[in-house]
Amino acid sequence: MKYYGALEAGGTKMVLAVMDENGNTVRQESIPTKTPAETMPEMIAFFSAYAISSLGIGGFGPLNLDRNAAEYGHIMETPKLPWRHYPLLQAFRDALQVPVGLDTDVNAAALAEARLGAARGKESCLYVTVGTGIGGGVMIHGKPVHGLMHPEIGHISVSPVPEDPMPEGICPYHAHCLEGLASGPSIEKRWGISARELPQGHPARDIESAYLAQLCANAMLTFSPDMIILGGGVMQQKFLLPMIREKTLKLLNGYIAHPAVSEGLEHYIVTPGLDTRSGITGAWLLAMEAEAALY
Amino acid sequence: MKYYGALEAGGTKMVLAVMDENGNTVRQESIPTKTPAETMPEMIAFFSAYAISSLGIGGFGPLNLDRNAAEYGHIMETPKLPWRHYPLLQAFRDALQVPVGLDTDVNAAALAEARLGAARGKESCLYVTVGTGIGGGVMIHGKPVHGLMHPEIGHISVSPVPEDPMPEGICPYHAHCLEGLASGPSIEKRWGISARELPQGHPARDIESAYLAQLCANAMLTFSPDMIILGGGVMQQKFLLPMIREKTLKLLNGYIAHPAVSEGLEHYIVTPGLDTRSGITGAWLLAMEAEAALY
Repeated sequence: MKYYGALEAGGTKMVLAVMDENGNTVRQESIPTKTPAETMPEMIAFFSAYAISSLGIGGFGPLNLDRNAAEYGHIMETPKLPWRHYPLLQAFRDALQVPVGLDTDVNAAALAEARLGAARGKESCLYVTVGTGIGGGVMIHGKPVHGLMHPEIGHISVSPVPEDPMPEGICPYHAHCLEGLASGPSIEKRWGISARELPQGHPARDIESAYLAQLCANAMLTFSPDMIILGGGVMQQKFLLPMIREKTLKLLNGYIAHPAVSEGLEHYIVTPGLDTRSGITGAWLLAMEAEAALY
Repeated sequence: MKYYGALEAGGTKMVLAVMDENGNTVRQESIPTKTPAETMPEMIAFFSAYAISSLGIGGFGPLNLDRNAAEYGHIMETPKLPWRHYPLLQAFRDALQVPVGLDTDVNAAALAEARLGAARGKESCLYVTVGTGIGGGVMIHGKPVHGLMHPEIGHISVSPVPEDPMPEGICPYHAHCLEGLASGPSIEKRWGISARELPQGHPARDIESAYLAQLCANAMLTFSPDMIILGGGVMQQKFLLPMIREKTLKLLNGYIAHPAVSEGLEHYIVTPGLDTRSGITGAWLLAMEAEAALY
Protein backbone atom coordinates (compact mmCIF):
# COMPACT_ATOMS: atom_id res chain seq x y z
CA MET A 1 0.00 0.00 0.00
CA LYS A 2 1.19 3.47 -0.91
CA TYR A 3 0.34 6.60 1.06
CA TYR A 4 -0.31 10.09 -0.22
CA GLY A 5 -0.64 13.31 1.71
CA ALA A 6 -3.55 15.63 0.94
CA LEU A 7 -3.89 19.13 2.36
CA GLU A 8 -6.79 21.50 1.96
CA ALA A 9 -5.17 24.70 3.17
CA GLY A 10 -7.82 27.21 4.15
CA GLY A 11 -7.58 30.60 5.74
CA THR A 12 -9.36 29.47 8.91
CA LYS A 13 -8.58 25.75 9.02
CA MET A 14 -6.26 23.19 7.53
CA VAL A 15 -7.73 19.82 6.57
CA LEU A 16 -5.01 17.17 6.48
CA ALA A 17 -5.42 13.64 5.20
CA VAL A 18 -3.36 10.61 4.42
CA MET A 19 -4.96 8.51 1.71
CA ASP A 20 -4.00 5.35 -0.13
CA GLU A 21 -3.67 4.93 -3.90
CA ASN A 22 -7.38 4.13 -4.18
CA GLY A 23 -8.43 7.29 -2.41
CA ASN A 24 -9.34 5.60 0.88
CA THR A 25 -8.71 7.86 3.82
CA VAL A 26 -6.25 6.41 6.31
CA ARG A 27 -6.29 9.36 8.67
CA GLN A 28 -7.82 12.83 8.59
CA GLU A 29 -7.59 15.82 10.89
CA SER A 30 -8.49 19.50 10.97
CA ILE A 31 -6.42 22.14 12.72
CA PRO A 32 -6.91 25.89 12.96
CA THR A 33 -4.83 28.05 10.62
CA LYS A 34 -2.58 30.19 12.83
CA THR A 35 0.79 31.51 11.70
CA PRO A 36 3.26 29.50 9.60
CA ALA A 37 5.52 29.24 12.65
CA GLU A 38 2.76 27.59 14.63
CA THR A 39 0.89 25.62 11.99
CA MET A 40 3.61 24.33 9.67
CA PRO A 41 5.35 22.13 12.29
CA GLU A 42 2.01 20.57 13.23
CA MET A 43 1.25 19.74 9.61
CA ILE A 44 4.73 18.43 8.91
CA ALA A 45 4.46 16.17 11.95
CA PHE A 46 1.11 14.86 10.73
CA PHE A 47 2.45 13.88 7.31
CA SER A 48 5.81 12.67 8.62
CA ALA A 49 4.09 9.92 10.57
CA TYR A 50 3.49 8.12 7.26
CA ALA A 51 5.90 7.29 4.47
CA ILE A 52 3.94 9.35 1.96
CA SER A 53 5.02 9.15 -1.69
CA SER A 54 3.98 12.70 -2.43
CA LEU A 55 1.85 15.57 -1.16
CA GLY A 56 -0.95 17.49 -2.87
CA ILE A 57 -2.12 20.90 -1.69
CA GLY A 58 -5.26 22.79 -2.58
CA GLY A 59 -4.50 26.15 -1.06
CA PHE A 60 -6.11 29.49 -0.33
CA GLY A 61 -4.73 32.17 -2.56
CA PRO A 62 -3.71 34.09 -4.34
CA LEU A 63 -0.97 31.61 -5.19
CA ASN A 64 1.94 31.86 -7.56
CA LEU A 65 1.43 28.86 -9.89
CA ASP A 66 3.91 29.91 -12.57
CA ARG A 67 6.51 27.14 -12.59
CA ASN A 68 9.04 29.46 -14.18
CA ALA A 69 8.70 32.16 -11.53
CA ALA A 70 11.12 32.61 -8.64
CA GLU A 71 8.13 32.76 -6.32
CA TYR A 72 6.50 29.58 -7.68
CA GLY A 73 4.57 27.91 -4.88
CA HIS A 74 4.39 31.01 -2.71
CA ILE A 75 1.20 32.48 -1.27
CA MET A 76 0.93 36.00 -2.70
CA GLU A 77 -0.91 39.15 -1.57
CA THR A 78 -3.25 37.48 0.91
CA PRO A 79 -4.98 39.54 3.61
CA LYS A 80 -3.80 36.81 6.05
CA LEU A 81 -0.59 38.69 6.70
CA PRO A 82 1.54 36.00 8.40
CA TRP A 83 1.15 33.88 5.25
CA ARG A 84 1.89 36.62 2.76
CA HIS A 85 4.77 35.54 0.48
CA TYR A 86 5.11 32.32 2.42
CA PRO A 87 6.83 29.62 0.30
CA LEU A 88 4.21 26.97 1.01
CA LEU A 89 5.29 24.43 -1.59
CA GLN A 90 9.01 24.72 -0.88
CA ALA A 91 8.51 24.47 2.88
CA PHE A 92 6.75 21.13 2.53
CA ARG A 93 9.15 19.85 -0.09
CA ASP A 94 12.13 20.67 2.09
CA ALA A 95 10.61 19.18 5.21
CA LEU A 96 9.09 16.02 3.73
CA GLN A 97 11.50 15.41 0.84
CA VAL A 98 8.72 14.26 -1.49
CA PRO A 99 7.21 15.74 -4.67
CA VAL A 100 4.56 18.36 -3.88
CA GLY A 101 1.70 19.34 -6.18
CA LEU A 102 -0.08 22.65 -5.64
CA ASP A 103 -3.13 24.39 -7.00
CA THR A 104 -5.82 26.66 -5.62
CA ASP A 105 -8.33 25.06 -3.26
CA VAL A 106 -11.07 25.63 -5.83
CA ASN A 107 -9.05 24.33 -8.78
CA ALA A 108 -8.38 21.21 -6.71
CA ALA A 109 -12.10 20.86 -6.08
CA ALA A 110 -12.86 21.41 -9.79
CA LEU A 111 -10.27 18.76 -10.68
CA ALA A 112 -11.86 16.25 -8.30
CA GLU A 113 -15.36 16.99 -9.58
CA ALA A 114 -14.21 16.59 -13.20
CA ARG A 115 -12.36 13.33 -12.57
CA LEU A 116 -14.54 11.67 -9.94
CA GLY A 117 -17.55 13.82 -9.16
CA ALA A 118 -20.48 15.53 -10.82
CA ALA A 119 -18.58 16.42 -14.01
CA ARG A 120 -16.98 12.99 -14.40
CA GLY A 121 -16.29 12.34 -18.07
CA LYS A 122 -16.55 16.00 -19.01
CA GLU A 123 -13.70 18.00 -20.51
CA SER A 124 -14.54 21.18 -18.66
CA CYS A 125 -16.36 22.52 -15.65
CA LEU A 126 -16.60 25.50 -13.34
CA TYR A 127 -16.61 24.79 -9.61
CA VAL A 128 -17.65 27.63 -7.33
CA THR A 129 -17.76 27.66 -3.56
CA VAL A 130 -20.13 30.15 -1.97
CA GLY A 131 -19.37 30.57 1.70
CA THR A 132 -17.30 32.99 3.77
CA GLY A 133 -15.86 34.04 0.44
CA ILE A 134 -16.64 33.11 -3.13
CA GLY A 135 -14.01 31.34 -5.21
CA GLY A 136 -14.01 29.42 -8.44
CA GLY A 137 -11.91 26.72 -10.05
CA VAL A 138 -11.92 26.06 -13.78
CA MET A 139 -11.17 22.86 -15.70
CA ILE A 140 -10.80 23.10 -19.48
CA HIS A 141 -9.58 20.41 -21.86
CA GLY A 142 -9.30 18.14 -18.83
CA LYS A 143 -6.81 20.32 -16.94
CA PRO A 144 -7.03 23.06 -14.29
CA VAL A 145 -6.75 26.57 -15.70
CA HIS A 146 -4.07 28.95 -14.45
CA GLY A 147 -3.30 31.40 -17.24
CA LEU A 148 -1.90 34.71 -16.09
CA MET A 149 -2.48 33.80 -12.43
CA HIS A 150 -5.58 31.72 -11.70
CA PRO A 151 -9.31 32.39 -11.79
CA GLU A 152 -10.68 34.73 -9.09
CA ILE A 153 -14.27 34.52 -10.18
CA GLY A 154 -15.59 35.66 -6.81
CA HIS A 155 -14.49 39.15 -7.71
CA ILE A 156 -16.29 39.60 -11.04
CA SER A 157 -18.51 42.62 -11.04
CA VAL A 158 -22.25 41.97 -11.18
CA SER A 159 -25.19 44.31 -11.74
CA PRO A 160 -26.80 45.34 -8.47
CA VAL A 161 -30.30 43.90 -8.11
CA PRO A 162 -32.80 46.81 -7.84
CA GLU A 163 -34.35 45.39 -4.63
CA ASP A 164 -30.96 45.04 -2.91
CA PRO A 165 -30.75 47.35 0.15
CA MET A 166 -26.94 47.06 0.10
CA PRO A 167 -26.08 47.32 -3.61
CA GLU A 168 -22.41 48.21 -3.16
CA GLY A 169 -21.60 45.05 -1.23
CA ILE A 170 -18.88 44.54 1.36
CA CYS A 171 -15.75 43.73 -0.66
CA PRO A 172 -12.91 46.03 0.40
CA TYR A 173 -11.49 45.93 -3.15
CA HIS A 174 -14.49 46.19 -5.48
CA ALA A 175 -17.88 47.86 -5.40
CA HIS A 176 -20.61 45.41 -6.46
CA CYS A 177 -18.42 42.38 -6.91
CA LEU A 178 -19.98 38.96 -6.51
CA GLU A 179 -18.24 38.10 -3.24
CA GLY A 180 -19.18 41.45 -1.75
CA LEU A 181 -22.84 40.89 -2.63
CA ALA A 182 -23.43 37.15 -2.32
CA SER A 183 -20.99 35.66 0.22
CA GLY A 184 -22.29 34.43 3.57
CA PRO A 185 -20.98 37.51 5.43
CA SER A 186 -22.72 39.82 2.93
CA ILE A 187 -26.05 38.14 3.71
CA GLU A 188 -25.41 38.53 7.44
CA LYS A 189 -24.36 42.15 7.08
CA ARG A 190 -27.42 42.99 5.02
CA TRP A 191 -30.10 41.18 6.98
CA GLY A 192 -28.62 40.42 10.39
CA ILE A 193 -29.24 36.69 9.91
CA SER A 194 -27.31 33.91 8.22
CA ALA A 195 -28.16 32.13 4.96
CA ARG A 196 -29.47 29.12 6.86
CA GLU A 197 -31.93 31.22 8.86
CA LEU A 198 -33.63 32.86 5.89
CA PRO A 199 -37.35 32.04 6.10
CA GLN A 200 -39.46 31.29 3.04
CA GLY A 201 -40.44 34.48 1.27
CA HIS A 202 -37.47 36.44 2.65
CA PRO A 203 -36.23 38.88 -0.01
CA ALA A 204 -32.65 37.68 0.53
CA ARG A 205 -33.53 34.46 -1.27
CA ASP A 206 -34.38 36.29 -4.46
CA ILE A 207 -31.41 38.60 -4.25
CA GLU A 208 -28.88 35.86 -3.47
CA SER A 209 -30.09 33.64 -6.30
CA ALA A 210 -30.15 36.60 -8.71
CA TYR A 211 -26.45 37.31 -8.11
CA LEU A 212 -25.46 33.66 -8.44
CA ALA A 213 -27.52 33.43 -11.64
CA GLN A 214 -25.50 36.33 -13.06
CA LEU A 215 -22.37 34.36 -12.24
CA CYS A 216 -23.70 31.29 -14.05
CA ALA A 217 -24.99 33.12 -17.13
CA ASN A 218 -21.83 35.18 -17.56
CA ALA A 219 -19.57 32.14 -17.07
CA MET A 220 -21.56 30.22 -19.71
CA LEU A 221 -21.24 33.10 -22.16
CA THR A 222 -17.57 33.70 -21.36
CA PHE A 223 -16.02 30.23 -21.61
CA SER A 224 -18.90 27.82 -22.04
CA PRO A 225 -18.11 25.20 -19.36
CA ASP A 226 -19.67 21.74 -19.77
CA MET A 227 -21.09 22.00 -16.26
CA ILE A 228 -21.33 24.43 -13.36
CA ILE A 229 -20.96 23.03 -9.84
CA LEU A 230 -21.97 25.20 -6.91
CA GLY A 231 -20.71 24.20 -3.47
CA GLY A 232 -19.91 25.80 -0.12
CA GLY A 233 -21.87 26.64 2.98
CA VAL A 234 -24.39 29.03 1.46
CA MET A 235 -25.35 26.42 -1.18
CA GLN A 236 -26.39 24.05 1.62
CA GLN A 237 -29.66 26.01 1.52
CA LYS A 238 -31.60 23.76 -0.82
CA PHE A 239 -34.00 26.48 -1.94
CA LEU A 240 -31.20 28.24 -3.82
CA LEU A 241 -30.36 25.82 -6.63
CA PRO A 242 -33.75 25.81 -8.42
CA MET A 243 -34.01 29.58 -8.05
CA ILE A 244 -30.55 30.03 -9.57
CA ARG A 245 -31.41 27.77 -12.52
CA GLU A 246 -34.63 29.63 -13.20
CA LYS A 247 -32.99 33.05 -13.08
CA THR A 248 -30.06 31.89 -15.23
CA LEU A 249 -32.53 30.76 -17.89
CA LYS A 250 -34.21 34.17 -17.77
CA LEU A 251 -30.89 35.96 -18.15
CA LEU A 252 -29.83 33.80 -21.11
CA ASN A 253 -33.26 34.34 -22.67
CA GLY A 254 -32.95 31.56 -25.21
CA TYR A 255 -29.60 32.70 -26.49
CA ILE A 256 -27.78 29.41 -25.89
CA ALA A 257 -29.70 26.84 -27.91
CA HIS A 258 -28.47 23.63 -26.34
CA PRO A 259 -30.40 20.73 -24.82
CA ALA A 260 -28.71 21.29 -21.43
CA VAL A 261 -30.32 24.72 -21.37
CA SER A 262 -33.69 23.88 -22.91
CA GLU A 263 -34.02 21.01 -20.42
CA GLY A 264 -33.92 23.57 -17.62
CA LEU A 265 -30.28 23.33 -16.48
CA GLU A 266 -31.13 20.57 -14.01
CA HIS A 267 -28.12 18.54 -15.04
CA TYR A 268 -26.00 21.57 -15.82
CA ILE A 269 -26.03 23.73 -12.69
CA VAL A 270 -25.59 21.21 -9.89
CA THR A 271 -24.15 20.67 -6.44
CA PRO A 272 -20.86 18.79 -5.92
CA GLY A 273 -20.88 15.05 -6.62
CA LEU A 274 -18.26 14.55 -3.90
CA ASP A 275 -20.33 16.53 -1.39
CA THR A 276 -17.93 18.30 0.98
CA ARG A 277 -14.95 16.15 -0.08
CA SER A 278 -14.21 17.80 -3.44
CA GLY A 279 -11.33 19.84 -2.03
CA ILE A 280 -9.47 17.12 -0.15
CA THR A 281 -10.04 14.64 -2.99
CA GLY A 282 -8.57 17.17 -5.39
CA ALA A 283 -5.53 17.56 -3.14
CA TRP A 284 -5.08 13.78 -3.26
CA LEU A 285 -5.28 13.87 -7.09
CA LEU A 286 -2.64 16.61 -7.10
CA ALA A 287 -0.42 14.36 -4.98
CA MET A 288 -0.84 11.48 -7.44
CA GLU A 289 0.02 13.82 -10.33
CA ALA A 290 3.06 15.23 -8.55
CA GLU A 291 4.35 11.68 -8.07
CA ALA A 292 3.65 10.71 -11.69
CA ALA A 293 5.44 13.84 -12.97
CA LEU A 294 8.68 12.40 -11.58
CA TYR A 295 8.76 9.50 -13.96
CA MET B 1 3.35 23.08 -53.36
CA LYS B 2 0.20 22.22 -51.44
CA TYR B 3 -2.93 24.37 -51.40
CA TYR B 4 -5.34 24.92 -48.56
CA GLY B 5 -8.73 26.59 -48.59
CA ALA B 6 -9.55 29.18 -45.95
CA LEU B 7 -12.98 30.68 -45.43
CA GLU B 8 -13.97 33.44 -43.08
CA ALA B 9 -17.73 33.07 -43.19
CA GLY B 10 -19.37 36.26 -41.98
CA GLY B 11 -22.98 37.30 -41.86
CA THR B 12 -22.47 40.10 -44.38
CA LYS B 13 -19.49 38.86 -46.41
CA MET B 14 -17.51 35.74 -47.11
CA VAL B 15 -13.73 36.04 -47.32
CA LEU B 16 -12.28 33.18 -49.35
CA ALA B 17 -8.61 32.41 -49.72
CA VAL B 18 -6.36 29.76 -51.14
CA MET B 19 -3.07 29.60 -49.27
CA ASP B 20 0.01 27.43 -49.48
CA GLU B 21 1.57 25.40 -46.68
CA ASN B 22 3.61 28.41 -45.56
CA GLY B 23 0.58 30.63 -45.26
CA ASN B 24 1.25 32.63 -48.41
CA THR B 25 -1.97 33.75 -50.06
CA VAL B 26 -2.35 32.47 -53.61
CA ARG B 27 -5.73 34.03 -54.23
CA GLN B 28 -8.25 35.90 -52.10
CA GLU B 29 -11.74 37.21 -52.74
CA SER B 30 -14.70 38.63 -50.84
CA ILE B 31 -18.29 38.02 -51.83
CA PRO B 32 -21.50 39.17 -50.17
CA THR B 33 -23.32 36.65 -47.98
CA LYS B 34 -26.70 36.01 -49.60
CA THR B 35 -28.60 32.73 -49.22
CA PRO B 36 -26.94 29.30 -49.22
CA ALA B 37 -28.50 28.61 -52.63
CA GLU B 38 -26.80 31.66 -54.07
CA THR B 39 -23.55 31.82 -52.12
CA MET B 40 -22.54 28.18 -51.71
CA PRO B 41 -22.06 27.46 -55.45
CA GLU B 42 -19.89 30.56 -55.80
CA MET B 43 -17.69 29.48 -52.90
CA ILE B 44 -17.45 25.91 -54.10
CA ALA B 45 -16.42 27.13 -57.54
CA PHE B 46 -13.72 29.32 -55.97
CA PHE B 47 -12.15 26.47 -54.03
CA SER B 48 -12.66 23.87 -56.80
CA ALA B 49 -10.32 25.83 -59.08
CA TYR B 50 -7.41 24.59 -56.93
CA ALA B 51 -6.54 21.09 -55.81
CA ILE B 52 -6.87 22.04 -52.13
CA SER B 53 -5.81 19.43 -49.57
CA SER B 54 -8.33 20.59 -47.00
CA LEU B 55 -10.57 23.49 -46.06
CA GLY B 56 -10.75 25.48 -42.83
CA ILE B 57 -13.74 27.60 -41.89
CA GLY B 58 -14.06 30.29 -39.25
CA GLY B 59 -17.79 30.84 -39.26
CA PHE B 60 -20.43 33.11 -37.84
CA GLY B 61 -22.49 31.33 -35.24
CA PRO B 62 -23.90 29.95 -33.27
CA LEU B 63 -22.34 26.76 -34.60
CA ASN B 64 -22.74 23.19 -33.50
CA LEU B 65 -19.16 22.11 -32.75
CA ASP B 66 -19.99 18.89 -30.90
CA ARG B 67 -18.42 16.14 -33.01
CA ASN B 68 -20.77 13.59 -31.51
CA ALA B 69 -23.93 15.50 -32.38
CA ALA B 70 -26.11 14.73 -35.40
CA GLU B 71 -26.02 18.44 -36.23
CA TYR B 72 -22.23 18.75 -35.99
CA GLY B 73 -21.07 21.43 -38.39
CA HIS B 74 -24.46 23.08 -38.73
CA ILE B 75 -25.17 26.75 -38.18
CA MET B 76 -27.70 26.92 -35.33
CA GLU B 77 -30.25 29.56 -34.24
CA THR B 78 -28.82 32.44 -36.24
CA PRO B 79 -30.96 35.52 -36.96
CA LYS B 80 -29.80 35.11 -40.60
CA LEU B 81 -32.75 32.88 -41.40
CA PRO B 82 -31.66 31.34 -44.73
CA TRP B 83 -28.61 29.93 -42.94
CA ARG B 84 -30.42 28.62 -39.88
CA HIS B 85 -29.65 24.88 -39.46
CA TYR B 86 -27.60 24.92 -42.65
CA PRO B 87 -25.06 22.03 -42.67
CA LEU B 88 -22.11 24.23 -43.56
CA LEU B 89 -19.34 21.71 -42.90
CA GLN B 90 -21.08 18.80 -44.63
CA ALA B 91 -21.98 20.87 -47.69
CA PHE B 92 -18.33 21.72 -48.28
CA ARG B 93 -17.11 18.22 -47.50
CA ASP B 94 -19.58 16.71 -49.93
CA ALA B 95 -18.83 19.21 -52.69
CA LEU B 96 -15.04 19.36 -52.34
CA GLN B 97 -14.32 15.84 -51.05
CA VAL B 98 -11.60 17.09 -48.69
CA PRO B 99 -11.32 17.24 -44.90
CA VAL B 100 -13.00 20.34 -43.48
CA GLY B 101 -12.13 21.99 -40.16
CA LEU B 102 -14.62 24.33 -38.54
CA ASP B 103 -14.68 26.70 -35.60
CA THR B 104 -16.25 30.05 -34.83
CA ASP B 105 -14.80 33.05 -36.65
CA VAL B 106 -13.51 34.40 -33.33
CA ASN B 107 -12.05 31.09 -32.15
CA ALA B 108 -10.23 30.92 -35.50
CA ALA B 109 -8.88 34.43 -34.90
CA ALA B 110 -7.86 33.51 -31.34
CA LEU B 111 -6.09 30.42 -32.67
CA ALA B 112 -4.16 32.49 -35.22
CA GLU B 113 -3.21 35.11 -32.65
CA ALA B 114 -2.01 32.41 -30.22
CA ARG B 115 0.03 30.53 -32.82
CA LEU B 116 1.32 33.36 -35.01
CA GLY B 117 0.15 36.71 -33.66
CA ALA B 118 0.21 38.82 -30.54
CA ALA B 119 -0.12 35.86 -28.15
CA ARG B 120 2.50 33.72 -29.89
CA GLY B 121 4.07 31.38 -27.38
CA LYS B 122 1.28 31.77 -24.87
CA GLU B 123 -0.93 28.93 -23.72
CA SER B 124 -4.09 30.99 -23.53
CA CYS B 125 -5.68 34.16 -24.80
CA LEU B 126 -8.99 35.88 -25.30
CA TYR B 127 -9.64 37.43 -28.70
CA VAL B 128 -12.57 39.84 -28.95
CA THR B 129 -13.84 41.62 -32.03
CA VAL B 130 -15.75 44.84 -31.41
CA GLY B 131 -17.65 45.88 -34.52
CA THR B 132 -21.16 45.38 -35.84
CA GLY B 133 -21.44 42.78 -33.12
CA ILE B 134 -19.15 41.71 -30.30
CA GLY B 135 -17.77 38.18 -30.27
CA GLY B 136 -14.98 36.41 -28.46
CA GLY B 137 -12.76 33.43 -29.06
CA VAL B 138 -10.89 31.65 -26.27
CA MET B 139 -7.69 29.62 -26.37
CA ILE B 140 -6.74 27.65 -23.27
CA HIS B 141 -3.96 25.08 -22.91
CA GLY B 142 -3.11 25.82 -26.54
CA LYS B 143 -6.49 24.83 -27.97
CA PRO B 144 -9.73 26.66 -28.86
CA VAL B 145 -12.43 26.33 -26.21
CA HIS B 146 -15.83 24.92 -27.09
CA GLY B 147 -17.30 23.38 -23.95
CA LEU B 148 -21.07 23.19 -23.89
CA MET B 149 -21.33 25.19 -27.10
CA HIS B 150 -18.71 27.92 -27.60
CA PRO B 151 -18.02 31.28 -25.96
CA GLU B 152 -20.54 34.05 -26.69
CA ILE B 153 -18.77 36.70 -24.65
CA GLY B 154 -20.48 39.57 -26.48
CA HIS B 155 -23.60 38.74 -24.54
CA ILE B 156 -22.27 38.90 -20.98
CA SER B 157 -24.17 41.33 -18.86
CA VAL B 158 -22.31 44.45 -17.76
CA SER B 159 -23.21 47.17 -15.26
CA PRO B 160 -24.67 50.23 -16.95
CA VAL B 161 -22.36 53.23 -16.69
CA PRO B 162 -24.18 56.01 -14.75
CA GLU B 163 -23.51 58.58 -17.51
CA ASP B 164 -24.91 56.33 -20.25
CA PRO B 165 -28.04 57.90 -21.82
CA MET B 166 -29.06 54.46 -23.21
CA PRO B 167 -28.28 52.09 -20.31
CA GLU B 168 -30.45 49.20 -21.52
CA GLY B 169 -28.61 48.85 -24.82
CA ILE B 170 -29.97 47.55 -28.11
CA CYS B 171 -29.60 43.76 -27.88
CA PRO B 172 -32.95 42.11 -28.69
CA TYR B 173 -32.12 39.25 -26.28
CA HIS B 174 -30.56 40.87 -23.23
CA ALA B 175 -30.91 44.16 -21.39
CA HIS B 176 -27.49 45.69 -20.68
CA CYS B 177 -25.40 43.07 -22.41
CA LEU B 178 -22.02 44.09 -23.75
CA GLU B 179 -22.95 43.88 -27.43
CA GLY B 180 -26.09 45.91 -26.84
CA LEU B 181 -24.07 48.63 -25.12
CA ALA B 182 -20.69 48.70 -26.85
CA SER B 183 -21.06 47.45 -30.45
CA GLY B 184 -20.68 49.90 -33.35
CA PRO B 185 -24.46 50.11 -33.93
CA SER B 186 -25.07 50.87 -30.23
CA ILE B 187 -22.74 53.86 -30.50
CA GLU B 188 -24.57 55.05 -33.63
CA LYS B 189 -27.98 54.54 -32.06
CA ARG B 190 -27.00 56.45 -28.94
CA TRP B 191 -25.17 59.40 -30.48
CA GLY B 192 -26.15 59.49 -34.13
CA ILE B 193 -22.51 59.23 -35.19
CA SER B 194 -20.14 56.32 -35.69
CA ALA B 195 -17.18 55.32 -33.52
CA ARG B 196 -14.73 56.83 -35.99
CA GLU B 197 -16.44 60.23 -35.86
CA LEU B 198 -16.30 60.65 -32.08
CA PRO B 199 -14.42 63.88 -31.36
CA GLN B 200 -12.02 64.27 -28.46
CA GLY B 201 -13.89 64.84 -25.22
CA HIS B 202 -17.07 63.18 -26.50
CA PRO B 203 -18.72 61.26 -23.62
CA ALA B 204 -19.03 58.17 -25.83
CA ARG B 205 -15.31 57.62 -25.50
CA ASP B 206 -15.54 57.24 -21.75
CA ILE B 207 -18.64 55.08 -21.89
CA GLU B 208 -17.34 52.77 -24.62
CA SER B 209 -14.03 52.21 -22.88
CA ALA B 210 -15.79 51.64 -19.55
CA TYR B 211 -17.84 48.78 -20.98
CA LEU B 212 -14.86 47.18 -22.67
CA ALA B 213 -12.89 47.52 -19.42
CA GLN B 214 -15.63 45.58 -17.64
CA LEU B 215 -15.22 42.86 -20.25
CA CYS B 216 -11.46 42.74 -19.69
CA ALA B 217 -11.60 42.77 -15.90
CA ASN B 218 -14.31 40.13 -15.69
CA ALA B 219 -12.56 37.88 -18.21
CA MET B 220 -9.32 38.14 -16.23
CA LEU B 221 -11.12 37.23 -13.02
CA THR B 222 -13.16 34.45 -14.64
CA PHE B 223 -10.53 32.42 -16.53
CA SER B 224 -7.30 34.37 -16.27
CA PRO B 225 -6.19 34.46 -19.94
CA ASP B 226 -2.49 35.09 -20.62
CA MET B 227 -3.42 37.96 -22.93
CA ILE B 228 -6.46 39.87 -24.15
CA ILE B 229 -6.56 40.89 -27.82
CA LEU B 230 -9.13 43.44 -28.93
CA GLY B 231 -9.83 43.72 -32.65
CA GLY B 232 -12.66 44.75 -34.96
CA GLY B 233 -13.79 48.02 -36.51
CA VAL B 234 -14.51 49.92 -33.30
CA MET B 235 -11.02 49.16 -31.98
CA GLN B 236 -9.53 50.95 -35.00
CA GLN B 237 -10.13 54.09 -32.92
CA LYS B 238 -6.70 54.40 -31.35
CA PHE B 239 -7.90 56.43 -28.37
CA LEU B 240 -9.75 53.42 -26.97
CA LEU B 241 -6.96 51.04 -26.03
CA PRO B 242 -5.20 53.21 -23.41
CA MET B 243 -8.56 54.20 -21.93
CA ILE B 244 -9.59 50.55 -21.64
CA ARG B 245 -6.32 49.63 -19.93
CA GLU B 246 -6.65 52.46 -17.44
CA LYS B 247 -10.24 51.61 -16.56
CA THR B 248 -9.47 47.88 -16.30
CA LEU B 249 -6.75 48.69 -13.77
CA LYS B 250 -9.23 50.76 -11.77
CA LEU B 251 -11.78 47.97 -11.78
CA LEU B 252 -9.23 45.36 -10.65
CA ASN B 253 -8.02 47.77 -7.99
CA GLY B 254 -4.82 45.90 -7.22
CA TYR B 255 -6.51 42.57 -6.78
CA ILE B 256 -4.44 40.71 -9.36
CA ALA B 257 -0.86 41.07 -8.20
CA HIS B 258 1.03 40.19 -11.35
CA PRO B 259 3.71 42.11 -13.26
CA ALA B 260 1.49 42.23 -16.39
CA VAL B 261 -1.00 44.23 -14.34
CA SER B 262 1.39 46.36 -12.31
CA GLU B 263 3.18 47.31 -15.55
CA GLY B 264 -0.07 48.89 -16.73
CA LEU B 265 -1.45 46.16 -19.02
CA GLU B 266 0.41 47.56 -22.01
CA HIS B 267 1.55 44.13 -23.09
CA TYR B 268 -1.57 42.40 -21.82
CA ILE B 269 -4.52 44.18 -23.43
CA VAL B 270 -3.40 44.63 -27.01
CA THR B 271 -4.58 44.84 -30.62
CA PRO B 272 -4.19 41.87 -33.01
CA GLY B 273 -0.68 40.96 -34.09
CA LEU B 274 -2.04 39.82 -37.44
CA ASP B 275 -3.93 43.06 -37.94
CA THR B 276 -7.09 42.29 -39.93
CA ARG B 277 -5.84 38.84 -41.03
CA SER B 278 -6.39 36.95 -37.76
CA GLY B 279 -9.62 35.37 -38.98
CA ILE B 280 -8.50 34.15 -42.39
CA THR B 281 -5.17 32.98 -40.96
CA GLY B 282 -7.07 31.03 -38.32
CA ALA B 283 -9.18 29.42 -41.05
CA TRP B 284 -5.97 28.35 -42.78
CA LEU B 285 -4.68 26.84 -39.50
CA LEU B 286 -7.97 24.96 -39.16
CA ALA B 287 -7.45 23.59 -42.67
CA MET B 288 -3.94 22.38 -41.78
CA GLU B 289 -5.32 20.73 -38.63
CA ALA B 290 -8.17 19.07 -40.53
CA GLU B 291 -5.65 17.56 -42.92
CA ALA B 292 -3.33 16.42 -40.12
CA ALA B 293 -6.24 14.79 -38.26
CA LEU B 294 -6.55 12.31 -41.14
CA TYR B 295 -3.19 10.72 -40.50
